[in-house]
Amino acid sequence: MTYALYIGNKRYSTWSMRPWVLLKALDIPFTEKLHMFKPGLRQPEFLQFSPTGKVPCLHHDDTSIVVWDSLAICEYVAESHPAAWPADAAARAFARSAAAEMHSSFDAIRDECSMNVALRIELGTPGEALQGDLDRLTALFKEGLKRFKGPFLAGETFTVADAMYAPIASRCKTFGIELDGAAGEYMQRLFDHPAVQAWVQEGVAENEIEPYHEEDCRRGRKVLEDFTKQ
Amino acid sequence: MTYALYIGNKRYSTWSMRPWVLLKALDIPFTEKLHMFKPGLRQPEFLQFSPTGKVPCLHHDDTSIVVWDSLAICEYVAESHPAAWPADAAARAFARSAAAEMHSSFDAIRDECSMNVALRIELGTPGEALQGDLDRLTALFKEGLKRFKGPFLAGETFTVADAMYAPIASRCKTFGIELDGAAGEYMQRLFDHPAVQAWVQEGVAENEIEPYHEEDCRRGRKVLEDFTKQ
Ligand SMILES: N[C@@H](CCC(=O)N[C@@H](CS)C(=O)NCC(=O)O)C(=O)O
Ligand SMILES: N[C@@H](CCC(=O)N[C@@H](CS)C(=O)NCC(=O)O)C(=O)O
Repeated sequence: MTYALYIGNKRYSTWSMRPWVLLKALDIPFTEKLHMFKPGLRQPEFLQFSPTGKVPCLHHDDTSIVVWDSLAICEYVAESHPAAWPADAAARAFARSAAAEMHSSFDAIRDECSMNVALRIELGTPGEALQGDLDRLTALFKEGLKRFKGPFLAGETFTVADAMYAPIASRCKTFGIELDGAAGEYMQRLFDHPAVQAWVQEGVAENEIEPYHEEDCRRGRKVLEDFTKQ
Repeated sequence: MTYALYIGNKRYSTWSMRPWVLLKALDIPFTEKLHMFKPGLRQPEFLQFSPTGKVPCLHHDDTSIVVWDSLAICEYVAESHPAAWPADAAARAFARSAAAEMHSSFDAIRDECSMNVALRIELGTPGEALQGDLDRLTALFKEGLKRFKGPFLAGETFTVADAMYAPIASRCKTFGIELDGAAGEYMQRLFDHPAVQAWVQEGVAENEIEPYHEEDCRRGRKVLEDFTKQ
């Protein structure tokens, strides 16, 4: 086994989910190193395996290379597995832009709709910032699907761009968000992808409930369903 | 001319600075499309050339490819100009991790020490969050310089990793921040690089002062020097 991928709780950790889903979708073997969050936001004990104290972090044992950060891990893996990006140059440029946009934007949905793969929550009417993110996601997805003909964001195959938006598909489910038309269909298709489903199911099966992340998702909003296994 | 790079004010726009400095440092020809900020934070008229309404945005005229987002532009350019990343695989993995970390972290220095290439400002004692960012920058720079032997962050040549941290070098100057030892020397070296100096000098020469960005940098702190050309 050459890749060791350090991740946090599948229930909560969106950044961990991205490279994990990519590796699964591309059938690239790796050892999962799951470290559950201790209570609270910061996880200083992660400094033992990650220079930023954050997950995900990839250790490539054959080369003793350590890659921290989700997007850098995807690019690193793509060097040895070019199928991680679309083969077509225009599709690849689009996919890279979309992936980078996810990496640094969409603050409102990341803040207000914390991922929790085991819950269904009543969101209510989105405020202006959240609606802005949803509108941009819709436009982005529609453009990619139209230009590169789907079923994935940048063409026929599952790439880093899809992996980067996988947590958004989970958030849409949890908060009952339905994007318009082809964008909403893409969210459903992404959610149904075997690699995404594998992550979600394993997250639902986790017994560890961490109060900070749990509350960050619930925020007093009405819980419609709770799939947590007891 | 094949690349057209859309950017904002050189005085303020850190994200624009990164790919611009990369292209200059690598001697890659491009047409600069400078669009000055209108008063305020958001620039809706940028939607005419950028799908997110943000700069930077690269138009590759030969292929009619549009790449939005600083890091995606760097990766896109690197496809045709491999010298944009270190040749050594371990150095490249480090450079990609460092670049991605800059792309999504260091919120405190980005928030509290807004870039303004024409000013020198008295910062006072950094609070905990800012000190945390400075400590992490110091550790990151020292590690890269030690492992890959400098003078640049990931080895002998100027790469995307250096371009991503170029605005930090400008912020250190403006706010009189001196990082410890080799990290501080690297900040000075980066600031002195001809590509960085070209950006800074052109920024100082700009006549356009935009009140929102100006105030975001000053915040009532003492201005020690103001190089703005009148
Ligand atoms: N920019 C990073 C973000 C990583 C991140 O924020 N990870 C969270 C979990 S999803 C974490 O490890 N938090 C623990 C901490 O900040 O101490 C990436 O893309 O990998
Ligand atoms: N994640 C983007 C960030 C780009 C960004 O925030 N650009 C600012 C200028 S430095 C901008 O265009 N602001 C105008 C706006 O938000 O309307 C990147 O890396 O390129």
